[in-house]
Formats: sequence, structure tokens, C-alpha cells
Amino acid sequence: MSDNSFKKARLDYNIGSIDFNNIIDPIKLFRRWFDEVYQIDKEEAVSMNLSTISSDNYPNSRIVLLRGLEDGFIFYSNYKSQKGREIEKNPKAHINFYWPSLERQVRIKGTINKTSAKVSDKYFLSRPLKSRIGAILSDQSTEIPLDKDLQKELLGEINKNHNKKIERPNHWGGYYLKPSEIEFWQGKDARLHDRLLYKRKNNEWIAKRLSP
Amino acid sequence: MSDNSFKKARLDYNIGSIDFNNIIDPIKLFRRWFDEVYQIDKEEAVSMNLSTISSDNYPNSRIVLLRGLEDGFIFYSNYKSQKGREIEKNPKAHINFYWPSLERQVRIKGTINKTSAKVSDKYFLSRPLKSRIGAILSDQSTEIPLDKDLQKELLGEINKNHNKKIERPNHWGGYYLKPSEIEFWQGKDARLHDRLLYKRKNNEWIAKRLSP
Repeated sequence: MSDNSFKKARLDYNIGSIDFNNIIDPIKLFRRWFDEVYQIDKEEAVSMNLSTISSDNYPNSRIVLLRGLEDGFIFYSNYKSQKGREIEKNPKAHINFYWPSLERQVRIKGTINKTSAKVSDKYFLSRPLKSRIGAILSDQSTEIPLDKDLQKELLGEINKNHNKKIERPNHWGGYYLKPSEIEFWQGKDARLHDRLLYKRKNNEWIAKRLSP
Repeated sequence: MSDNSFKKARLDYNIGSIDFNNIIDPIKLFRRWFDEVYQIDKEEAVSMNLSTISSDNYPNSRIVLLRGLEDGFIFYSNYKSQKGREIEKNPKAHINFYWPSLERQVRIKGTINKTSAKVSDKYFLSRPLKSRIGAILSDQSTEIPLDKDLQKELLGEINKNHNKKIERPNHWGGYYLKPSEIEFWQGKDARLHDRLLYKRKNNEWIAKRLSP
């Protein structure tokens, strides 16, 4: 890593544009953009950076995976994890989808609620056995010994449980972020990016274009 | 986009591990991880999600590009942009590097300061002419007409200025985030990820392993 290595990684954005003459509903536009990147790279499409606010009032962020889009953007987590505790205390949150394959970002501001137990159960049961057992094994974000062998514990639990139904633990489930603002960002030449911001006002979306 | 499409995008993480028997300085570890992803994809290496806190106390995030690593993680911006105004009001911030090529994240908590005018000047002058002109053309994050043709304005300015030296405007420059916590995350099978968290205490880094 040298000073020079940063300069060589100069991103030039030239793939697309936002059609400002044809403003459509932001959820429709999101689905269109999502489908386009999904054709190229499924994993890239569903990966989103979730930002929350920590107990000492710092922003905090990590990648979570989009698992549905109904009343909002749905993802799943351990409710006792650091992010779960942060959301419990302060539901204000932000999601950034970064889709480098198409030089796009979608930035979403909103508040988070838990999905119903029914929705969480349904999703939990659809996960592979090892992921269900993994959810039970991990006391997320707590300190553990350096030499703990989680993969070995996992194998042991899989052997013990492979004929049993693993039910969803109460501390694991879904969240959805209900959007109040959605910004679409399309990278452009010379950093003169296209940006379109939607804000929800009385159940209507108002759009405006932003300077890059 | 269907319910099913989310499930098909199941990420399995199998590439690497964190060596918990050999804890090294986090900046050294960062440089090692950065160099490894840089060999694969320069753009992926320098792209980082920067989270700040908005004036109405929501987290807010967007991609910025790492341009140096000295007293902290350096990036450049318009100081009058929304992120600039947020940082001015509240310097608490968080960076997440997501490197899917190697199934890694590096999450960094810290506070942001401006780089010196000298550092900002040097970087600004190293940028291509069109990016320098772009920085002057854009009144970042303000509303602009839907039909504004920025690329045309850019070409006009390039024609007018191609023999002139374009100096850095006062409202454009560098920031660096000084880290107080750095977490290394390596994706693992069954969501039993490796996580190593460093916290700075009296100029020393204390490391602990976290449950996935």
C-alpha cells in the first residue's frame, strides 16, 4: 500500500443515467434497479449497509442481506446482537445499497420495526439446518475465547440434531425498515453524478433532483 | 423480483479465517487486508461506506473513496455537501469497508477532522482537469432543475479552462477519520463468522474476539 496505490484506483463512472423526464414511483424504480443488478450478481443485489446509532451516539454500520420488500426493506438478525440492541433503543436507521456493477447507490432513510413472529418463523424454517443451528450457537457480539472452535461445535450440534426440527429462538427474527426518504444515485463522468431524492409527505412521494 | 429471488441469493462464506493465535497491530492488519483485496480489485479496495449523523439525528451513509492512510483514513469531499455539514456539526462517524471478493468487512469507529490546506491542495492538483472543474460546477446536495445539462456545462468549462490552472476552491478538501475501534470480520460457514475487535485505550490497542 503506497500513496500511489490510492490514485491508481480512480473510478470513472460511465454506464448509465437517471431519466429525469420520466419520474416514477420510487419503490418501482428500486425494483427495476434491483432486478437489473440481480441479473448480474445476486449477492451484490441483496447486500446492503445498515447504519444505526450506538448507545454512545456514534453511527454504526455493517452489511445485512435484503430478504424481502413489503411494508419496508426486510432483513433478519439476532435481536440480542449489538445491532438489535441499538435498534431497540433507537429505531432511526439508514440503508445504503452500493451496486458497483452498475455504478449505483440507493440510499434509504427510515425507522425500523420487528416483523411479526409468523413472518420470522416462516423465514427461519426456510434456512439451511446449519444456519439455524448457527443462530442458536452464537451469542452475538459478546466476547468469546480466542481458541473457541465454532465449526467443531457446529458439527457436533448438526450430528445431534439432524433429525430434529430446529425452531426459531425468541431472540432471532426479522426487521423491516419503512422508508421516509429514498435517494437514487447513478455515477457519472467527472463526478457529476445523477441524483434523485424522494421524500414521503402524507403518503405521497415528492421527488427532486440534487446537485452531484 | 419475487420472494424466491431473495432466497436464491444465499451467501456462503468459505474463503478465509482470522488467525486468533497471532494478533497483530490493527493498522498492520488493515494494510495487509487492503493489499490483498487491492490485488484483486482496486476499486473495491478503496470504496468505503461512511456513516455520519444527520441534523435530525438519523444515521446517514454513502460511499466515499479512501485516498490515504496516515493519522487516519483520508477521503475528500465538498465541505458544503450534506456530509460536510453533518461532519461540521457532529464529527462522530463510522466507516465500513465491505470486500466481497474476500468475504471481509473492516468496521471503523472514530471522529473526523479536516486535513490541512496543504494536504488538500496537493490532492486536488493531482486530480484530472475534468474532476477539478466538476468540483467547482457542483453545489453539492442542493436542488437543481430536472433538465440541467451538467455534462454540457462541463465541456464548456473544459474548453474555457484547459490552459488555466484550476485551484482548489475553499469549500473542497480532505477529511481524516481517526479510529478508536476497528473490527475485522471474516465471513464463515453457517454464519459462524470470525470477528476481532480492537479498541484504543491510552494509545494502545486492546483486542478481543467477538461471537459471530
